[in-house]
Amino acid sequence: MEKNKNEFKYLRIAEVIERQILNNTLRAGDKIPSLRTLCREYGVSQNTALNAYYYLEGKMLIEARPQSGYYVSFSNARIPSIPKKTNPSTIANHGDSELLVSKVYGNLGENGHLALSLGTPANELLPIAKLNKALIQATRDLKGSGVASDKVEGNERLRRQIARWAFAMESHLTHEDIITTSGCLNALSYCMMAVAEKGDTVAMESPVSFGMLQLAEALGIKVLELPTHPQNGVDLNAFEDALKSKQVKASLLISNFSNPLGSCMADKNKETAVILSEKYNKPLIENDINGDVYFGKYRPKSCKTFDKTGIVLWCGSISKTLAPGYRVGWVAPGKFKEKVLRLKLFLTIASTSVTQEVIANFLETGRYENHLRKLRATLHGNMLKYSQIIGKYFPERTMASRPQGGFVIWVELPVKIDTMEVYEKTSRREISYAPGRIFSLQNQYNNCLRLNYGLQWNNKLEYRLIELGNLFKNT
Amino acid sequence: MEKNKNEFKYLRIAEVIERQILNNTLRAGDKIPSLRTLCREYGVSQNTALNAYYYLEGKMLIEARPQSGYYVSFSNARIPSIPKKTNPSTIANHGDSELLVSKVYGNLGENGHLALSLGTPANELLPIAKLNKALIQATRDLKGSGVASDKVEGNERLRRQIARWAFAMESHLTHEDIITTSGCLNALSYCMMAVAEKGDTVAMESPVSFGMLQLAEALGIKVLELPTHPQNGVDLNAFEDALKSKQVKASLLISNFSNPLGSCMADKNKETAVILSEKYNKPLIENDINGDVYFGKYRPKSCKTFDKTGIVLWCGSISKTLAPGYRVGWVAPGKFKEKVLRLKLFLTIASTSVTQEVIANFLETGRYENHLRKLRATLHGNMLKYSQIIGKYFPERTMASRPQGGFVIWVELPVKIDTMEVYEKTSRREISYAPGRIFSLQNQYNNCLRLNYGLQWNNKLEYRLIELGNLFKNT
Repeated sequence: MEKNKNEFKYLRIAEVIERQILNNTLRAGDKIPSLRTLCREYGVSQNTALNAYYYLEGKMLIEARPQSGYYVSFSNARIPSIPKKTNPSTIANHGDSELLVSKVYGNLGENGHLALSLGTPANELLPIAKLNKALIQATRDLKGSGVASDKVEGNERLRRQIARWAFAMESHLTHEDIITTSGCLNALSYCMMAVAEKGDTVAMESPVSFGMLQLAEALGIKVLELPTHPQNGVDLNAFEDALKSKQVKASLLISNFSNPLGSCMADKNKETAVILSEKYNKPLIENDINGDVYFGKYRPKSCKTFDKTGIVLWCGSISKTLAPGYRVGWVAPGKFKEKVLRLKLFLTIASTSVTQEVIANFLETGRYENHLRKLRATLHGNMLKYSQIIGKYFPERTMASRPQGGFVIWVELPVKIDTMEVYEKTSRREISYAPGRIFSLQNQYNNCLRLNYGLQWNNKLEYRLIELGNLFKNT
Repeated sequence: MEKNKNEFKYLRIAEVIERQILNNTLRAGDKIPSLRTLCREYGVSQNTALNAYYYLEGKMLIEARPQSGYYVSFSNARIPSIPKKTNPSTIANHGDSELLVSKVYGNLGENGHLALSLGTPANELLPIAKLNKALIQATRDLKGSGVASDKVEGNERLRRQIARWAFAMESHLTHEDIITTSGCLNALSYCMMAVAEKGDTVAMESPVSFGMLQLAEALGIKVLELPTHPQNGVDLNAFEDALKSKQVKASLLISNFSNPLGSCMADKNKETAVILSEKYNKPLIENDINGDVYFGKYRPKSCKTFDKTGIVLWCGSISKTLAPGYRVGWVAPGKFKEKVLRLKLFLTIASTSVTQEVIANFLETGRYENHLRKLRATLHGNMLKYSQIIGKYFPERTMASRPQGGFVIWVELPVKIDTMEVYEKTSRREISYAPGRIFSLQNQYNNCLRLNYGLQWNNKLEYRLIELGNLFKNT
């Protein structure tokens, strides 16, 4: 209890100062109260005060200067403004977008220079030693040591934990509503196969993660790209118009901290999206892979939270937060459960036993939440730092999204700059970003790019970002 | 070297005696030479002689009687005759076969009584402790400890090992020809999606593993069931006729120790099948999941061995021999490699990192081959024992296949017995087998059943088999 109380204390103090910085009450370069003053003002121990400042340092909001004290290092003034709502044109074909993706990621994994172009956290941010320990434990706990085949629906301990987590955001799921999968994309693929056929159309945000576009392509499904706001996500009028259309069989939304925009649908919008989906009887596939990585006080709700009829197929995984290589994901497919379960059984039988058990253990013991707390603070700090560098070093009138969670930030450069052209003209060794064009099936977002801030912050990364800004300035 | 030489010696001796038993030179109840005689006759150590008898005991061919010596326990006379070639009718719909499968496997995993109805080895036959050790080693060897995402094409060490194994059976593959998958069914699903579309027809053996039928159903693909011989596999005239048909877009064959028949295509037949596939330009999907579990001297070749143009998509896994729960499989998709790789990338991104590394290690260090050697002897012995019990305790005129490898035996009862009816009439707790009807989309094989001999032999199992025979006798 005592520990929890203190934990809340330091966070409370940190949040007060954070608010003052973000609303410009405290400005870059301002000296902030000394630790001693903090202790006196708030009546806390030196340790609690120190923790508050560590937390703010982790977020890159303040910095310690030797023999001098703590200073605000973040300036709101430099933050670029948010891009306008997108305005994509209608249904397009998959055309050349695959070629463009392979141009960017063709040598993926060969070396480290692609880090900024990815949408996943760096290994340094993951609790590898703890996962290894849990892996050994899992071989002891599991019947048949993980060698035996798992049930079709997946590890029960894991499903119970996922249900518990979902419950926290008021999605009233039980483990029986949940099926585990080999990662989130695998879950999404079953959902797409369950609700749409070759030749059908599925409505999505635009720009949208090219993984979603490729998934649709693999299944011969067309994509209708919807206008989307970088803060609030999909435009609901356009969403309703899409659902009215006969060709559109379903929608797929990245409801929380979307990729690549970083947008997050407001609760009210989520509720409306679900009501519309029910009204037009069009299944809503919800990709909630980033929902746990929020920078605010609470995890945002999911569309699933507002689902009363089972029209929402809610998908998630730990691939972006814990262990991409484990391939552990899940889906609560609502009324499509039997269909999805059959697809899993008929196409792959079961998921890997041992990695599911490890994740169940991580959730059960609270180690996942511990890890997330650190990860969120790190990513929030990185995001703010990226914003500042974009504001300071990127071309004038550059805009950028302000993600309240997740791993990626969307940058809109002046229209004359073609990010794909710059990418192709420059040696791949020198640059690293995801050109905006690959997040659409149409010829748009040519002046945009997506950057990954799920990286360990250091001088090299800072230098690389500044260099990137200069590259665009000199284009 | 010395160890190898001795190993060959004991095997050579055992094989001589085995041949004498199988061709009835030695009959059930005959006393065989004492250990001392064996040492003298063959000029070997007592240890070598003992190993030869242990080997034969493991195969259930001989038994030791206290204070008396070794006796032949196997009688060829009791072995049931082999069923005739099947004669399935033409294209059928998926109809009610799914319902029947769920009737048999609906409570799978709930308790152990289903063992005889499965097509996988029991946990007791798997090297669980060694796999656990290798798992810990894998977290040390792997970059990022298996937490990091694997390449799309899969673990390179594993792919090199698979290529090496394939090379041994004269399939001249390199690691670049191979893509790893989440088990064999997952590999087969990518292959099916790569070569056929909804509404197309794929030709298969009949009866065929219901997993293959379900896979086709999940993808909306029709199945043409081909006449198949319990020893030599698919009828090649029927196979050619199928390939001539416009609707048939590809074939899928379980070339070695098929499920449920246990048939194995002769090398010559494999070569012909490949030549025909090339002639009619119809891809051949080869399910070679059981090829490593051979009872003869050498691993049978694969269709892939004879593939010169890349028309064969060769699929395999260790799910049936080592670790069903690991979900590690692979495919050498020939000229469909790019298509299969794209499907894997677009639908699941990558396979689980750490389990792939464990299997790579097992292959590399020879531990897989060591394990297989034991497994083969155990299964061969079980198969012979099953044959004897079927010959002795099942209704008169019962026939059974004589698998030269794999895990399952196909039993054909007198036509008046309906195995599905018996299954449904009797309490599920009392019986355990897979009714023949579930291995076809048509109303046939009603008097057949498949039994799993991938189990630990003991009195209980023997009793259960005898009981099963009595059940059918009293029907």
